[in-house]
Amino acid sequence: MRIISSVAAPNIALIKYWGKRDDLLKLPINDSISITLDEKALASTTTIVLGSKLKRDTFILNGHAGPDAHITEALLLIRRRLGKRHHIIRKPILLISDNNFPTAAGIASSASGFAALAEAVASALGIRNRREISILARLGSGSASRSAFGGYVRWKMGKRKDGEDSFAVQVSPRSRWPQLADVIAISSAERKKVSSKSGMERTLKTSELCHCRQEHVQRAVEKVAGAIRRKDFRSLAYLTMRDSNAMHATMLDSWPPIIYMNDTSRAVVEAVHQYNEKAGSLRAAYTFDAGPNAHVITTRKEAGKIARMLKGIRGVRKVIVSGVGEGSKTIPTPQKTKQLIARILHK
Amino acid sequence: MRIISSVAAPNIALIKYWGKRDDLLKLPINDSISITLDEKALASTTTIVLGSKLKRDTFILNGHAGPDAHITEALLLIRRRLGKRHHIIRKPILLISDNNFPTAAGIASSASGFAALAEAVASALGIRNRREISILARLGSGSASRSAFGGYVRWKMGKRKDGEDSFAVQVSPRSRWPQLADVIAISSAERKKVSSKSGMERTLKTSELCHCRQEHVQRAVEKVAGAIRRKDFRSLAYLTMRDSNAMHATMLDSWPPIIYMNDTSRAVVEAVHQYNEKAGSLRAAYTFDAGPNAHVITTRKEAGKIARMLKGIRGVRKVIVSGVGEGSKTIPTPQKTKQLIARILHK
Repeated sequence: MRIISSVAAPNIALIKYWGKRDDLLKLPINDSISITLDEKALASTTTIVLGSKLKRDTFILNGHAGPDAHITEALLLIRRRLGKRHHIIRKPILLISDNNFPTAAGIASSASGFAALAEAVASALGIRNRREISILARLGSGSASRSAFGGYVRWKMGKRKDGEDSFAVQVSPRSRWPQLADVIAISSAERKKVSSKSGMERTLKTSELCHCRQEHVQRAVEKVAGAIRRKDFRSLAYLTMRDSNAMHATMLDSWPPIIYMNDTSRAVVEAVHQYNEKAGSLRAAYTFDAGPNAHVITTRKEAGKIARMLKGIRGVRKVIVSGVGEGSKTIPTPQKTKQLIARILHK
Repeated sequence: MRIISSVAAPNIALIKYWGKRDDLLKLPINDSISITLDEKALASTTTIVLGSKLKRDTFILNGHAGPDAHITEALLLIRRRLGKRHHIIRKPILLISDNNFPTAAGIASSASGFAALAEAVASALGIRNRREISILARLGSGSASRSAFGGYVRWKMGKRKDGEDSFAVQVSPRSRWPQLADVIAISSAERKKVSSKSGMERTLKTSELCHCRQEHVQRAVEKVAGAIRRKDFRSLAYLTMRDSNAMHATMLDSWPPIIYMNDTSRAVVEAVHQYNEKAGSLRAAYTFDAGPNAHVITTRKEAGKIARMLKGIRGVRKVIVSGVGEGSKTIPTPQKTKQLIARILHK
């Protein structure tokens, strides 16, 4: 029996992923680029047990036992990929996973969750190739492929039908530019009305402007990668805000329209523009995933000031500050989890 | 001395005008198509006095005397166009104008205002050609060109540099399809933060998605014109909602982004989608100009139900129902205005 625990943090995309060319394999229609967050601020902690005598896959997510279609699909794909060489993974698995932040509220809990799962599975099977871990994470959730690496990460869309060239690579390690921070303003912990999966399908199918964004977005990825290498915060900030706005524009242009940003999001947009104007240069950049919560990318030096500013905005319930993280990794299994496993297996 | 009064209603664009190829002459980058509203519901009433002994142009807008740069510019252009043949218009003018609805809140007060001015000027000079009246209105505000006609109106962008082929034409008179109504949900009577003029300049200059919309919008105009001729409400409704969303998408994609829709606007969007879903077909269509107020295009039969629905939405302060109007026209000068003129001229 193998028991492996791992931890992974979400990542915040500067150039976004919104649209798949293959739904099952989660192959995107463009490259994307992100900052992996710090697992000390935001994390999914996952433990898997392989080779137990359980009769069926058992999931305990945030303390609740129950089925989960998303994880079932991921395991199916992982088994299809690895089951021939690693028989142990074909047997029922026990998976225990906890997030320290609200699920499905525009903070990518699926990114950290599936990166942690991929990390644990790979480690249990002795797989050390990080490219392979990124692909395993991608099979669960596209953006999870980026959380397999720390620092500044680019997910290459690839061209192959089987997705073997669609994985993340590190643009720059955390150590080269550790000064950035993500100040997250949570205005809603509700589950979103339109899931990312069905939202991106809808945009790709119905938005004419979406295809227009595609023409520009690859160039934007190159520019952001260059800005990261040069440690050019102003370019990074500008391109980040523009791509967030462009993505939400294509969402609004979808049919029926998808509108994730609310009045609190708009107030953050205005506050950041004012902040930068007062500073006389771009010192902060907002970006929104598939939800109303704002991520404000800035430097650690300014993070406190930005956090105070965001706390003063009507509708902001909580502010979380995260630095740049190191990517997913294995950890010793927590004592509490060991006890939980013992209780489940000896029932 | 000539005293002429006129009345004009705003119009609501189904396919929108957002972007000029000539700022001074108000020449647009695409055709647009609209319904002229009923002056009994929403109107600008304008009286002009030509040939008085006033020393300078005098404006009294909604009861307040004062200068107005927008009207000054329009008069400059109108005089340049007509001054040679009609000397009387070169002399100081007295202009009295009143709206029966809030100014600059996403209801096109400039459209009705400048259409009324054009109507009054043309009538005072004996000009009866409605194409000419449309051009005169356009010199004040682009969308005003459409309020010179009643019913369903298309403003042709034209190709000429001097704008002589950029005027409105009637697609269908009110009498052919009098059943439509516009139910307006007013959620804010504040002046907007970004004026239409500077907003459309910004979008044209900075939004990449804007140029993408341009490729599709001419086709949409043709389709809406066809839907009007066939009295095909469902096509009209679909195309109207899509173009409103597409225009607001290009606004969001501008730099800095322009966001006119608020949480109340979003709630109207959702309510209309639900209403149509429940009805099993498109019976209502939202559309938003440069502001948060919703226009819901529907039939007179459904207008009462839609009005009740909108009144139940949080943030909606007032609901106005308008039928289809007949376009700008001259009217007898109101007694109160005559008295005001007498007081001003004999001071």
